[in-house]
Amino acid sequence: MKLKYYKDVKGEPVDEIGAAKVTRRILISPEDGAPNFIMRVFEIEPSGHTPYHTHPFEHEVFVKSGTGTLVFEGKDYPVKAGNVVFIQGNEKHQFRNSGNELLEIICLIPKG
Amino acid sequence: MKLKYYKDVKGEPVDEIGAAKVTRRILISPEDGAPNFIMRVFEIEPSGHTPYHTHPFEHEVFVKSGTGTLVFEGKDYPVKAGNVVFIQGNEKHQFRNSGNELLEIICLIPKG
Repeated sequence: MKLKYYKDVKGEPVDEIGAAKVTRRILISPEDGAPNFIMRVFEIEPSGHTPYHTHPFEHEVFVKSGTGTLVFEGKDYPVKAGNVVFIQGNEKHQFRNSGNELLEIICLIPKG
Repeated sequence: MKLKYYKDVKGEPVDEIGAAKVTRRILISPEDGAPNFIMRVFEIEPSGHTPYHTHPFEHEVFVKSGTGTLVFEGKDYPVKAGNVVFIQGNEKHQFRNSGNELLEIICLIPKG
């Protein structure tokens, strides 16, 4: 068993092209013994955003706090704390913080 | 893509032996097209608890709100909003609401 507080997990700036003002914390991973999937939290500052991109694996997302915009295949969808988003592999997506407070999203991906 | 608000997903009481005052909402599952893992939220009322049990698969948990106790292999650990818990398969565990407000935990399991 591993028990942590999410803010105690080291955060790293996301420096991928197309990302701005985003910090990632890897909360549960194979380093903890997780065999199947990985839990991360992304903290997006006001006016920040993740890359607008695709990849072959899915996302399962829970919006923890804040308000923002999900850009999905060219359309905008408002999101806020309590929203749940499932993005299939190869679907183009981006999260943007369009509010005034931190947008925190819990985002899980499969291992490997 | 699926976009939902977690409280709009139908909740069902958990009627397993050893559970009390617990509602489960299945947020992302194979019905949404999820190929690898399943996101649920458990809402545990004050004095409620999940079963004290084991199973062969792991849990990846993010405590969304409230305060409670993780009972793990006979020991108690306090938990609160922002805690992250990884429980391996076959490890004995229970979540108890030891506070005065709703304890909400986001809990993911592998598919199948």
